[in-house]
Amino acid sequence: MSRGSGRRGVDEDAHYRERAQRKKELVDRRIARATIDRGVVVVNTGNGKGKSSSGFGMLARSLGHGFRCGVVQFIKGSFSTGEEAFFRRFPDECDYRVMGEGFTWETQDRTRDIAAAEAAWGVAARMLADPDYDFVLLDELNIALTKDYIALDQVLAALAARPEFQHVVVTGRGAPEGLIEAADTVTEMRVVKHAFKAGIKAQHGIEL
Amino acid sequence: MSRGSGRRGVDEDAHYRERAQRKKELVDRRIARATIDRGVVVVNTGNGKGKSSSGFGMLARSLGHGFRCGVVQFIKGSFSTGEEAFFRRFPDECDYRVMGEGFTWETQDRTRDIAAAEAAWGVAARMLADPDYDFVLLDELNIALTKDYIALDQVLAALAARPEFQHVVVTGRGAPEGLIEAADTVTEMRVVKHAFKAGIKAQHGIEL
Repeated sequence: MSRGSGRRGVDEDAHYRERAQRKKELVDRRIARATIDRGVVVVNTGNGKGKSSSGFGMLARSLGHGFRCGVVQFIKGSFSTGEEAFFRRFPDECDYRVMGEGFTWETQDRTRDIAAAEAAWGVAARMLADPDYDFVLLDELNIALTKDYIALDQVLAALAARPEFQHVVVTGRGAPEGLIEAADTVTEMRVVKHAFKAGIKAQHGIEL
Repeated sequence: MSRGSGRRGVDEDAHYRERAQRKKELVDRRIARATIDRGVVVVNTGNGKGKSSSGFGMLARSLGHGFRCGVVQFIKGSFSTGEEAFFRRFPDECDYRVMGEGFTWETQDRTRDIAAAEAAWGVAARMLADPDYDFVLLDELNIALTKDYIALDQVLAALAARPEFQHVVVTGRGAPEGLIEAADTVTEMRVVKHAFKAGIKAQHGIEL
């Protein structure tokens, strides 16, 4: 490959260094300006893939930083046993609670769904009040909120009152406006293309 | 809470069960139709958060399924040491390669960046050709493609020729059109709100 060699290469390199320098300065300025050091609330929402898996990636990263972590899965599907199998390997570092067994359309029982969601929220609320947890993942909490199984006010109050350095990640489609307002970082996962819709069987380790 | 009790509650429950049943039937039909059982190519792109962390969440899930996994990080930032620290705990299950040391605007050297990207691609190509790898994460490969450090044709050929059951996840903003066409599932992570821009210091375990 001849890129970077010859007269044109030298000009390109100089131009490249100049642009890179400007970009670096911009980023350095932003980092310097960002001085509020506290826990953040991250919300992953939208109809696309990656909301939960991004939360689990942040969990892995947090464990890598030596954080004490808690996970509450508000929906136990017939799927998604992979994360559970994996993160249950670290019981001292990660308190992994699957609560939403009765809480999916598979059950077809609204009363039971509400009871399951309330029980899950009870566990979540204790984690959010406990300074021993540096990181709390509330997987699919948004579903329980949009279905009105759990009151948004209750959740916002618990987030506001949590320990200062605690990070919280909330996932699920249809994040309510009030939660988006309260969050620090909100990402919408948007479907561009979906293998499942195209007729490829849901895949262990990827889709599941 | 009085939801689900009384006359109105009974009607609500019946209505709920009916809708849940319809939804379940729709999903069951889709699952039955999706009969192609093979590895998928997943692309996470866009300007929002969660592209890489979703890839690392899928890595955790894959490890939970007992898959043999490979990771190539095309950009080693000054950040993101958390995943590396965590996933390096499992050297027998996860081959974790950080290749892109010279390949970020921090270096300000285009020639060196290209060499680093090519070396990273060499490692990635070997994983994609090896049936021992059930899952391969190519973190930030899109950056190397958009900067034209690696030829897209080369990547598409390697993806097309890979073992049938191998899953591949490619992350990074600006996924090229050809890669989107070749992928099975593509998600765009869209910024709704960003703590960093709002002046909150980049956080260990979350932003980092």
